[in-house]
Amino acid sequence: MADDRIHTFQSVFDCEARAVGDRFRSEISVTLHKPEHLTWELATDEYGFQGGDGTAPVPMAYFMAGLTSCLLTQLRVFAKKLRIDMREAKVACHAEWEATARGREPYVSMPKSVHMDIDFASAAPLAERQRLIDAAKGACFIEAILREPMNITHRLNTEEGWIDA
Amino acid sequence: MADDRIHTFQSVFDCEARAVGDRFRSEISVTLHKPEHLTWELATDEYGFQGGDGTAPVPMAYFMAGLTSCLLTQLRVFAKKLRIDMREAKVACHAEWEATARGREPYVSMPKSVHMDIDFASAAPLAERQRLIDAAKGACFIEAILREPMNITHRLNTEEGWIDA
Repeated sequence: MADDRIHTFQSVFDCEARAVGDRFRSEISVTLHKPEHLTWELATDEYGFQGGDGTAPVPMAYFMAGLTSCLLTQLRVFAKKLRIDMREAKVACHAEWEATARGREPYVSMPKSVHMDIDFASAAPLAERQRLIDAAKGACFIEAILREPMNITHRLNTEEGWIDA
Repeated sequence: MADDRIHTFQSVFDCEARAVGDRFRSEISVTLHKPEHLTWELATDEYGFQGGDGTAPVPMAYFMAGLTSCLLTQLRVFAKKLRIDMREAKVACHAEWEATARGREPYVSMPKSVHMDIDFASAAPLAERQRLIDAAKGACFIEAILREPMNITHRLNTEEGWIDA
């Protein structure tokens, strides 16, 4: 009899970014709560053309690294789980944004495209390789949060306490 | 006469993640093409509970760091541009996902929530602080790509060349 029970698990991350100095360096702590408690310390900065000091990667470098390595990691996870041959894997991601401003108003950003090129050696039939890619795309937390429209909520700490912002 | 001309600029990023060894370490190059050509080298890994060696942050740590520091950086950019007092700024992001699997099928991930707590000292009226937050939210590339549903395209390199995957 096939096992068709539904299993779920939650994943919860917290991140705090703190402004350092009076230009654009931020110091960042990221915490994973489950299944283990882990913390990573990172930093970002802007570069000269934005008025920064270039002491660390820009925020977008981390976003691109996370997005691209998430898919590669999931391909490796499912290559093992599904026993599909995959060697010398790499993923290349190309992403474009366009920002628009009217006169001196603050600019507004819009994503234009995200494309992934997947390259690996394999003796598996093409259908199996596609099954592996489908599993990785479905499991990747970052591809999932890009696919689905997400209402990001914000609060501001004020003299009267936290308010929606 | 008010300047209401429309200005646009493009931002293009490339990232390559390469599988290293036979567990989960990836080595990553991120390239920004405009307005300057810049490259960053990063690495990710998984931890023991996932069968990794813990030699570098997990992919999601970079995603969280990018998302949180992007908003903080934009707050700093627009605090200067709009001349709104902001000091000792920090942003805390809390994000949750749920993954579901039926029996032994690969699990499928869904984002549940992303919340940002913004905290800074300011002598500016509340309406000005809100104007600053609105500008930062609108400009942040990562908040924009989460808000908008995005069709991520994929290709696979095969013996017959690149195919949609």
